[in-house]
Amino acid sequence: MKLYDSTIPSGNSYKVHLLLSHLGIAYDVEDLDILANPSQTREPKFLAKNPNGRIPVLELDDGTCLAESNAILYYLADGTPYLPSDRLSRAQTLQWLFFEQYSHEPYIAVLKFWTYWGGLENLSAEMRTRVTTRGQAALDVMGEHLAERSFFVGEGYTIADIALFGYTQSAAAVGFTVPASVERWLTRVRQQPGHVAIKKDPLGKAP
Amino acid sequence: MKLYDSTIPSGNSYKVHLLLSHLGIAYDVEDLDILANPSQTREPKFLAKNPNGRIPVLELDDGTCLAESNAILYYLADGTPYLPSDRLSRAQTLQWLFFEQYSHEPYIAVLKFWTYWGGLENLSAEMRTRVTTRGQAALDVMGEHLAERSFFVGEGYTIADIALFGYTQSAAAVGFTVPASVERWLTRVRQQPGHVAIKKDPLGKAP
Repeated sequence: MKLYDSTIPSGNSYKVHLLLSHLGIAYDVEDLDILANPSQTREPKFLAKNPNGRIPVLELDDGTCLAESNAILYYLADGTPYLPSDRLSRAQTLQWLFFEQYSHEPYIAVLKFWTYWGGLENLSAEMRTRVTTRGQAALDVMGEHLAERSFFVGEGYTIADIALFGYTQSAAAVGFTVPASVERWLTRVRQQPGHVAIKKDPLGKAP
Repeated sequence: MKLYDSTIPSGNSYKVHLLLSHLGIAYDVEDLDILANPSQTREPKFLAKNPNGRIPVLELDDGTCLAESNAILYYLADGTPYLPSDRLSRAQTLQWLFFEQYSHEPYIAVLKFWTYWGGLENLSAEMRTRVTTRGQAALDVMGEHLAERSFFVGEGYTIADIALFGYTQSAAAVGFTVPASVERWLTRVRQQPGHVAIKKDPLGKAP
């Protein structure tokens, strides 16, 4: 299979790299330089892979393409210990995956982007207040949930943890206050067998 | 089971009402007046049901609560014709559910809210441009995908259609241009057995 990623490190693509590493699956990578050429993902060739024109996209060996990082995680984890098999636990895993994409990523990932690559001076005061306030609220929700739990769903490490780790690992560096329970969870995630770090920024802007 | 909803019609809650109607499942409803008392979903009693403090929440008969409209849809549809059973089709269904929550709802639902209840004069020019541009882009992606298809995944009506119908049905009324293929799909969705309309706005502001 082949993963379409961006040249600069994307937390959404990283989630997929991380799960593939845990699973020991070999795959190819094609990096698109979306900073230099933002329209690259809006060209017909790429839109045939993802009509929404975004990375990551996972191309399976038969040419079928899957988009949306958390849908890709679900596909890859299905039938493995990284996705619970009972109906309720699966739904609870999805609850956290949707939380991540609706209440977390749009604020923490966006502040990360503008901090390192977009230039904070290009973010309006209104948007900056919005992303800092809402991103902090998401981290606080995580902190409460993890206060008496080791992982997000059940007793073990799942794709809910992988998805939330993607951008939470960068939250402190871009100015958020990370609750102590979340810091401890970040450490637990890094200790999982097969863990890999997010790739280096080739532009040297992200730490 | 019991569905926690808002007094004003929520497209996210409506998705759950619609699927429960298709499935013929009886349930209780508790409406929270979040316009009059926005902090109601941030009180400890409600946060115990959803740590992210949002409706809808589905409370199961054993007291277990599920949040995130699309995770609730997945839970309810699991094992029914509204969710495909094979691994790839499930992931493709999730791809559209994540598209809905990331690229569609934050723009179309938000413009609907400000149009009817928040007051458009309270939406900044920057935010208004953002929601109109991005909401239109989402509708155009749907239009392309539906150009030669009847439903979003495979040959049949699934929770991908239910999730996207939730707010797409209001898009034209709040000023978006709805592609012809999407209009035809809206009609197909309304023709499904067990279809129910979204509830009336008790304030009489939404049509």
